[in-house]
Amino acid sequence: MSELRQNIITREWVIIAKERAKRPDELVRPKKQTAPLAAYDSHCPFCPGNEGMSADEKYRIADREGWKVRVVTNKFPALSQEGDRIRRIDGVFRSMSGVGFHEVVIEHRRHDLSPALYSVEELATVLAAFRQRYIQMRKDPRVEAIIIFKNHGESAGTSLQHPHTQIAATPIVPAQIRHRLDEAIRFFDETGECVFCTTLRRELEARVRIVASTDSFVAFIPYAALSPFHLWIFPVRHCSSFDGIEDFEITDLAAMLHTVLGKLYHGLNDPDYNFSIRSIPAREGQREYFHWYLTVIPRIARTAGFEIGSGMYINTTLPEESASFLRTARAD
Amino acid sequence: MSELRQNIITREWVIIAKERAKRPDELVRPKKQTAPLAAYDSHCPFCPGNEGMSADEKYRIADREGWKVRVVTNKFPALSQEGDRIRRIDGVFRSMSGVGFHEVVIEHRRHDLSPALYSVEELATVLAAFRQRYIQMRKDPRVEAIIIFKNHGESAGTSLQHPHTQIAATPIVPAQIRHRLDEAIRFFDETGECVFCTTLRRELEARVRIVASTDSFVAFIPYAALSPFHLWIFPVRHCSSFDGIEDFEITDLAAMLHTVLGKLYHGLNDPDYNFSIRSIPAREGQREYFHWYLTVIPRIARTAGFEIGSGMYINTTLPEESASFLRTARAD
Repeated sequence: MSELRQNIITREWVIIAKERAKRPDELVRPKKQTAPLAAYDSHCPFCPGNEGMSADEKYRIADREGWKVRVVTNKFPALSQEGDRIRRIDGVFRSMSGVGFHEVVIEHRRHDLSPALYSVEELATVLAAFRQRYIQMRKDPRVEAIIIFKNHGESAGTSLQHPHTQIAATPIVPAQIRHRLDEAIRFFDETGECVFCTTLRRELEARVRIVASTDSFVAFIPYAALSPFHLWIFPVRHCSSFDGIEDFEITDLAAMLHTVLGKLYHGLNDPDYNFSIRSIPAREGQREYFHWYLTVIPRIARTAGFEIGSGMYINTTLPEESASFLRTARAD
Repeated sequence: MSELRQNIITREWVIIAKERAKRPDELVRPKKQTAPLAAYDSHCPFCPGNEGMSADEKYRIADREGWKVRVVTNKFPALSQEGDRIRRIDGVFRSMSGVGFHEVVIEHRRHDLSPALYSVEELATVLAAFRQRYIQMRKDPRVEAIIIFKNHGESAGTSLQHPHTQIAATPIVPAQIRHRLDEAIRFFDETGECVFCTTLRRELEARVRIVASTDSFVAFIPYAALSPFHLWIFPVRHCSSFDGIEDFEITDLAAMLHTVLGKLYHGLNDPDYNFSIRSIPAREGQREYFHWYLTVIPRIARTAGFEIGSGMYINTTLPEESASFLRTARAD
């Protein structure tokens, strides 16, 4: 019989389908047979020398060659940085002008490099750029939520090969984020504790779903993982918003990402994945009940009508087995 | 500038990306070049003559040839019909035994037929089978929610070509369904009206997003459609649960589905899609604040990190233009 597990942070239930469960090694995809990319592509707007193709530069981390990381406005922004928040309410029809930010972090000069192959220092530079833009965007009073997200690989929604991450700042709090905040407050009201801190403590006690840990971060497969190898990276120190990350934590998170992305790359043959950094809404300050974290979702399973109709996922792997597989997978 | 629109039923915001907006006809996919399927496949567990390959038959609508529609237990059920609901709570780790139902409605004897090409009578027979199984599942006190869903085409999650729909009955109320119920109650508390009835009335007044209507059903593109051609079919008569559908409504919904699926098939070259029937949780009765409906989501856009990180969608079509396109598309 399958088992339903509830994600205490989101209140979502997941079906862990033991009958259909696959061993983690059955989910390793065949090695890509596509031709390797060139290190430089003269048509790529993110390659060095083509800076004019993505001209609205918001930030750069410079070096002798010119830059290590650049942040530019998305060429087709879903949200515009000019304009006022204008809310229109006509009964059940409710809208808001699409102001905010939609930027691209160009992570590396190399066109062909997977983030799993960056050095720890290079990853730290990328994370420092995330923090810098997060701090700036948050100063804008029109911004209610900031979402950092990466699409790696075609099935994860990438349209450009050159390695990049996106940052979107929205003029409203998305319903999903508000629901999770409400649940975190409710947990705090009932227990006096942060649900994220409690979850982390219990995972460290249980040990069976831990993938890797450093002084400041723990990577683990959630008890109610949505899909195979769905993975969370929690900061050990309670902090509500990503922009509160300290320098020593950036170094430590870079080392953790190097390990985790390396384990996916080597252990699962570079699967497509998304990651996202989840924080408290931008207008909230430091709160006892909310804790930022990073979620990684390899695109190994496909969502279908059941997920649309119920919001629930069916996971055909045991989280404990996924964790065990990744713990022993090669990281470097 | 883009526009954010809020779905008043789910409270989710959608970005209508006007700058990147495509005309509906740009989203018509090329005609499939794959070889047509055979009308009969000797290896298909759902084809006539192979009934022994899906032996746990729960229901059949018989005819002279044997059957028109069969309902069988899924061969790899995500939920098991035997066993008790056993809830385990160990602090933040909460689980429930995976009891419930997971069935397959084999819609037609023909292996190769798309539901868009069924006759209205054939569609009515399929809907009658849905209702029958819904009524039976709801009698089981372990069942908290019943989700009817279809995966049409590979990118929508189909693994078997023979046309079929699935029905899952879960032993818990999924968080998504509970959130929507809570929102509907809140709307009712504020206005004294059903949010679905109000939305339908306002859409009929506005007229700009209506795709088709019959005496008992209205098909329209939601004001805050998640994705291109995302479509809702609402019953005109207020009723909280799908199993309350009357015979005359089954005939009418069959005619509506024939029209809507036909418009997708002919107008968009048979895109992959999911549909789902959403009802009030199974243990609730008829309520003033909740109204069942059917949602159709063509798999034209891909979800990526932004949707994972925010729960919001970016729709690159204007709902009004999608509706206008489908209104004039050929249905038959």
